[in-house]
Amino acid sequence: MSTSFASSPRETYHHGDLRAALLDVAEALLDEGGPEAVSLREAARRTGVSPTAAYRHFADKESMQAALAVRGFDAFAAALAEAASSDPDEPLSAMGQAYVRFAVTRPGRFRLMFGTAVSERERHPELKAAVERASVGFRGAVGSSESSDKVLAMLRAWSMIHGLAQLVIDGMLPGYDPELLARAVTTKK
Amino acid sequence: MSTSFASSPRETYHHGDLRAALLDVAEALLDEGGPEAVSLREAARRTGVSPTAAYRHFADKESMQAALAVRGFDAFAAALAEAASSDPDEPLSAMGQAYVRFAVTRPGRFRLMFGTAVSERERHPELKAAVERASVGFRGAVGSSESSDKVLAMLRAWSMIHGLAQLVIDGMLPGYDPELLARAVTTKK
Repeated sequence: MSTSFASSPRETYHHGDLRAALLDVAEALLDEGGPEAVSLREAARRTGVSPTAAYRHFADKESMQAALAVRGFDAFAAALAEAASSDPDEPLSAMGQAYVRFAVTRPGRFRLMFGTAVSERERHPELKAAVERASVGFRGAVGSSESSDKVLAMLRAWSMIHGLAQLVIDGMLPGYDPELLARAVTTKK
Repeated sequence: MSTSFASSPRETYHHGDLRAALLDVAEALLDEGGPEAVSLREAARRTGVSPTAAYRHFADKESMQAALAVRGFDAFAAALAEAASSDPDEPLSAMGQAYVRFAVTRPGRFRLMFGTAVSERERHPELKAAVERASVGFRGAVGSSESSDKVLAMLRAWSMIHGLAQLVIDGMLPGYDPELLARAVTTKK
């Protein structure tokens, strides 16, 4: 299927490969400049394909951002699950540290996942599904019961660690080690 | 000092009044479209003055955003203080509800205050001072002691309520009443 002596780099991509390549480049844009820096045209340019080729995979900037958020939530779910299994005695504390580490390592990705860049989550069912996958692990670590006490404990834990991560990446807690803070707030006194 | 038969609306402003008028209009832009919608030119246009007149008060967009954030933090401090004094038995819960109400009522303002719009807080000493004023009330409600237990309790409470507010305005907790959530997470079980 590949064309020898291709006159343009676009010829070297199979359909699915180009989508992945565009998302790889878009992730770099996200890391560099945050959600607003994601651009279909710039992703196409850096990938070496025409804007038209990129628009075959993503209808618009928001669709590309949604696809990046899906990737983000899947990576997030994997990081939380790995953390929980690494410390069966204190899964919540391990997940809390992983949560903050995830945000601090690539704040642009974190802002995209939780911010307004993907303004209408309802329009992106694949994103809704990814959010659900990520929250399953979090709920599991707090307790699978649906009793109101457990639900409240989950909400408290999620709010606390999410707020800590957000305050850290927004520069509201300068001078502290983010993961030490995460350990401190999540460890039972 | 006022000019009769002024040929342009700009003549009707004293220096300090124009600054306040520009900020009032910029706050409306913030409410309409979030931090990115703040524009010196558009604020000047809506106020009926020239861009040059607006630039006499704000060096650039970031300076205007910083001034809006200062206003935001001062309003925030007042709202938290009022809440704490309205419920001396459970000041933390009252402040938690006020915190979330503040975010939900005008999310653009909240995002500006805590987000990256004012990218280098160190460059705006008046903003740093406003943040400090707002946090004094919060610390007071949790306990003025500087013992590490108290500091940790404060960090937990702040993270929790900030995270809840952020999750609510980011649409991660649809279908719940934000203030009921705030009361639930801040009330001792």
